[in-house]
Amino acid sequence: MVISVIGAGSCDKEIYGVAEETGRLIARNGCILVTGGLGGVMEAASRGAREAGGITVGILPGFSKEDANEYVQIPVVTGMSHARNVIVVRSADAVIAIAGEYGTLSEIAIALKLGRPVVGIRTWENIEGVIRAASPAEAVQKAMALVSR
Amino acid sequence: MVISVIGAGSCDKEIYGVAEETGRLIARNGCILVTGGLGGVMEAASRGAREAGGITVGILPGFSKEDANEYVQIPVVTGMSHARNVIVVRSADAVIAIAGEYGTLSEIAIALKLGRPVVGIRTWENIEGVIRAASPAEAVQKAMALVSR
Amino acid sequence: MVISVIGAGSCDKEIYGVAEETGRLIARNGCILVTGGLGGVMEAASRGAREAGGITVGILPGFSKEDANEYVQIPVVTGMSHARNVIVVRSADAVIAIAGEYGTLSEIAIALKLGRPVVGIRTWENIEGVIRAASPAEAVQKAMALVSR
Amino acid sequence: MVISVIGAGSCDKEIYGVAEETGRLIARNGCILVTGGLGGVMEAASRGAREAGGITVGILPGFSKEDANEYVQIPVVTGMSHARNVIVVRSADAVIAIAGEYGTLSEIAIALKLGRPVVGIRTWENIEGVIRAASPAEAVQKAMALVSR
Repeated sequence: MVISVIGAGSCDKEIYGVAEETGRLIARNGCILVTGGLGGVMEAASRGAREAGGITVGILPGFSKEDANEYVQIPVVTGMSHARNVIVVRSADAVIAIAGEYGTLSEIAIALKLGRPVVGIRTWENIEGVIRAASPAEAVQKAMALVSR
Repeated sequence: MVISVIGAGSCDKEIYGVAEETGRLIARNGCILVTGGLGGVMEAASRGAREAGGITVGILPGFSKEDANEYVQIPVVTGMSHARNVIVVRSADAVIAIAGEYGTLSEIAIALKLGRPVVGIRTWENIEGVIRAASPAEAVQKAMALVSR
Repeated sequence: MVISVIGAGSCDKEIYGVAEETGRLIARNGCILVTGGLGGVMEAASRGAREAGGITVGILPGFSKEDANEYVQIPVVTGMSHARNVIVVRSADAVIAIAGEYGTLSEIAIALKLGRPVVGIRTWENIEGVIRAASPAEAVQKAMALVSR
Repeated sequence: MVISVIGAGSCDKEIYGVAEETGRLIARNGCILVTGGLGGVMEAASRGAREAGGITVGILPGFSKEDANEYVQIPVVTGMSHARNVIVVRSADAVIAIAGEYGTLSEIAIALKLGRPVVGIRTWENIEGVIRAASPAEAVQKAMALVSR
């Protein structure tokens, strides 16, 4: 099972902790983690997953794998800027959105358009179809349950 | 000046009329119209623009220019599915969103991320950064004013 | 009918003249010209087509329509770097390759993969499937004949 | 180090064996294998790499990870058809081309355009810049040496 974690490229310490714990739980549940490969939420989730021994994939917008954060094990270099958002979402069985701004919103929208389950922690409000979770544990559990169905 | 009109691939008669009028005003103001090239709002806007003698570009998601509605003068065939949404938005100086669902939301989000002005008519509420307009005339006037600045 | 002209972003005076004449003939035959929108062969073909009153589309690899040469009437801004080569080719009913280097070779290969007719003037040798032409007139005539079939 | 193996989606037994051995050697040398994720040469290389305990990434053109051959451990679902060829090549430090047709030629051309070393086994002739290898062992050794430089 592949779970994508989406969120902004920079974030505060608290959100970083939430994303790291989410990545850790994804890995512990035997899932592959996909992110956009950059900083902030993407880095934190990758870090948590790597430290738990999981596989981390980073779908990078730019031209070089050097852009990836140090916890990305498998860099995929698209050179396609924001169009890579679609790949982040398509490659996932379920998507967990953590906080985030317009880039994250575009990924939430594409995921919902594609029929991928989207679980959100402190992310965009008022988007019908996003399933709320209060914690990383709840988010990962809900994401996995939605895929298994 | 290039203005993109975004919205769902099927719509009711009233929204169709709104989109058609928007396309017409875009053409009358000497702007090129870009859409996603399919039905619904995209077709209506293209129709209005063509009937006013304007240029209409359709950035198609599929593999054939036959997918374009009949009012698309210049079909661009991407074969990239929803990733073409990014191109629709990037190619515009300003974006007008009319009603719409998740696909439209993804385009609004990318436009805001890229710093393109987004004017909305009866579209997604509660997205900070979208400038509201009550009519096609107001939408086109606001879009043009925002670019000229 | 849409014809794409592909070739390098810089070229000598002779090749520039060949591309300009090719663009001119494409426009005179009532076809839309698509190119990659930059300099060299792309600029020359667009110039010829514009001067003959034709429509010129530039599928740009970068992030800004300012990258387009001055003869591109309709800039399409992909932000996808070389992945835009696929769009240049897919949008065409036939492709005319003029000289060119590796980028052009990638477009020739994709065009042949997609079953688009490819006519070549002084371009890559030894690629099975490329139809040779000695002059712009012969190239445009062959391209149009191959589509009409 | 990431090495991409490119080649056609169907191939004869001999080429299959060559690709399988190439994948095996890539894995034994501690490199990640990237392919286009489908059948033929892509499957054979992934199979060899997986059987040697390596990591295999498949950059898929379609809409579903079910399209991947069974030896792809990490499916990346692009939904971008041939535009995914660019990602296959960009994600690699070096590219090994085995036999192949127009799709492979497009990847060779993009790789050379991007300055990635390309080693070829029984692939397109007469493309300047492709380094020849007579065997999988020679190909992998040359690819690794070219990256280390």
